[in-house]
Amino acid sequence: MAKLTILGAGYMGSALAVVAAGRGHQVRLWGTWLDDELVGPAMRGEPHPRLKMELPAGIEIFSSEGLAAALAGAEAVVCAVNSDGVEPVFERATEHLPPGGPILSVTKGFLPDSGGRIRRVSEVVRERFLLPAGRDRPWVAIAGPCKAMEVARGVPTAVVYAAADLAVAESCARWLEDDHYTITRTDDLAGAEACSAFKNAYATASGLCDGLQLAGHPEMYNTKAMMFAQAIAEIARMGAALGGRPATAYGQAGVGDLHVTAAAGRNRTYGERVGRGEVPGEAAEAMRAVGELTEGYPALRTGWLLLSQMAGPGELDMADFPLLAALHEVVYEGADVARILAGLRMRD
Amino acid sequence: MAKLTILGAGYMGSALAVVAAGRGHQVRLWGTWLDDELVGPAMRGEPHPRLKMELPAGIEIFSSEGLAAALAGAEAVVCAVNSDGVEPVFERATEHLPPGGPILSVTKGFLPDSGGRIRRVSEVVRERFLLPAGRDRPWVAIAGPCKAMEVARGVPTAVVYAAADLAVAESCARWLEDDHYTITRTDDLAGAEACSAFKNAYATASGLCDGLQLAGHPEMYNTKAMMFAQAIAEIARMGAALGGRPATAYGQAGVGDLHVTAAAGRNRTYGERVGRGEVPGEAAEAMRAVGELTEGYPALRTGWLLLSQMAGPGELDMADFPLLAALHEVVYEGADVARILAGLRMRD
Repeated sequence: MAKLTILGAGYMGSALAVVAAGRGHQVRLWGTWLDDELVGPAMRGEPHPRLKMELPAGIEIFSSEGLAAALAGAEAVVCAVNSDGVEPVFERATEHLPPGGPILSVTKGFLPDSGGRIRRVSEVVRERFLLPAGRDRPWVAIAGPCKAMEVARGVPTAVVYAAADLAVAESCARWLEDDHYTITRTDDLAGAEACSAFKNAYATASGLCDGLQLAGHPEMYNTKAMMFAQAIAEIARMGAALGGRPATAYGQAGVGDLHVTAAAGRNRTYGERVGRGEVPGEAAEAMRAVGELTEGYPALRTGWLLLSQMAGPGELDMADFPLLAALHEVVYEGADVARILAGLRMRD
Repeated sequence: MAKLTILGAGYMGSALAVVAAGRGHQVRLWGTWLDDELVGPAMRGEPHPRLKMELPAGIEIFSSEGLAAALAGAEAVVCAVNSDGVEPVFERATEHLPPGGPILSVTKGFLPDSGGRIRRVSEVVRERFLLPAGRDRPWVAIAGPCKAMEVARGVPTAVVYAAADLAVAESCARWLEDDHYTITRTDDLAGAEACSAFKNAYATASGLCDGLQLAGHPEMYNTKAMMFAQAIAEIARMGAALGGRPATAYGQAGVGDLHVTAAAGRNRTYGERVGRGEVPGEAAEAMRAVGELTEGYPALRTGWLLLSQMAGPGELDMADFPLLAALHEVVYEGADVARILAGLRMRD
């Protein structure tokens, strides 16, 4: 039995608390200052407002002011805030991190480092918070197709734990694996992070097709499938350019996660709204206003910046990313969806 | 302009006739003895009963007794019958094949050769018909995500033309490629055929989840995505064992085609019926009775036989195909769907 502290009491943090409690661990679930309306009911034993189920009795729940207490003596810390929240949370949490134990992260995306370069979440958190405080920790990225509602309910799920040191991924996986939450271990941290971040951007593509169809266009399953396969090719290339392995994109972290994200979830919904004709920026704002942050919207921007930053003679060729270019054109450059999709030329 | 003869006037044969006519070729579309009710209306200029649209005026249409005339002088022949029909058609067609030109095939699946071993369609047709008649031809397998209804309507589609000799794939692609039907060329014929055949078998998995959900089970997007990624891994392994390259499965031929097949189509529907509780053999029979042959049903069987035939010490390990094993258990061994899915353990 281990002591695990989970930072972030939204969908995924709470779902992982359920998994960890089910494995008999001592679980502490800390809600950020944005999670008050989630943590309150959970503390009173009422159903978690997002997961729509009661959390197991053993889970200790902390509201935002209890950060130090929540982290005291933790053997591992799970980072389950969204990409917007990861910096403010580590700003406050770093000084309370107990020594040694790993950080497991479901936070995904790319962020600017202190020099303004776009980098992976693990790199930015280490560079900006952990290393300056002398508190560097092994980082385990959790990737793969995993909707929180289903994990919390024991629906068969396969995820990937990725750490630079395979032994760290292995020990974390042994803590949390159960019959319905199976875990592949890999040392391809860069590849796994690339998959998790980019899948949100590419999942909007499926939504665009759905939206066009709702707006009266003919069915376009062929186009949707073509874009799905092309997305995998582009994610694999990007992962390799970041130091990862293409194979990671071809497994659960890439193909699996893109599948679930493109089939169900906010990023698909966001694409659908744009496909139906909403102005991309306004659709993102409207969703954010009702608490439905679509990480694909910023991920398309940071992904594009990352690509531009890596492209050049002898390096990445922008022409190998026609789908990312098309999505960026639609979402950030005001291009017409139907025209862009009709003009897509894929490279296999 | 080339003279192309298409064998089979169902969905895909007719759709390719539309594409070829659009590129200005001289197109002859031959219907088998099972296609009479499709060919009749098309000959009278009425909408094609499957495609629900009129065929372009230039297409010359032949009913089954016009086989010799349809093939006379053809520079290339497109085989667009289903896997049940390919042997009886080549039994009649081989003697009329004009010399030299390639055979493009959308027919997919595995068939027993004259020794009873399960092999790829191209191998069986060559071994049983073309070689004995001294009429061997270059074979081009057409793979990738391609619903006929959408191709015929110019919806953006990306396919793969695969031939042992890349130059043959290239020349066929140049004949048929247009702005909305883009073609990747590859020399991985074995890999492409493996993808086309197995995707029908694996697409039933998505349907099983849908069916369970309709029968009252909770949502299982995680499981569906896990099985999708696992299917790609198994198809890639199988393709490699057949002499192909795994990369083919990771592109449009594998990921793309499985996506469209699992999202829409008869094999998904078949899985859904089984997931809802129908007896697998009866569901297949009921669909066949209304003209909805599900190629996934026989493909699961032949795929399983093929795997068994290739497995052994130092060769393929059956344990690397847990999803195919699970699907075979459900569809051919009477196992309970929900129990099997809950017990799935994937290998990434």
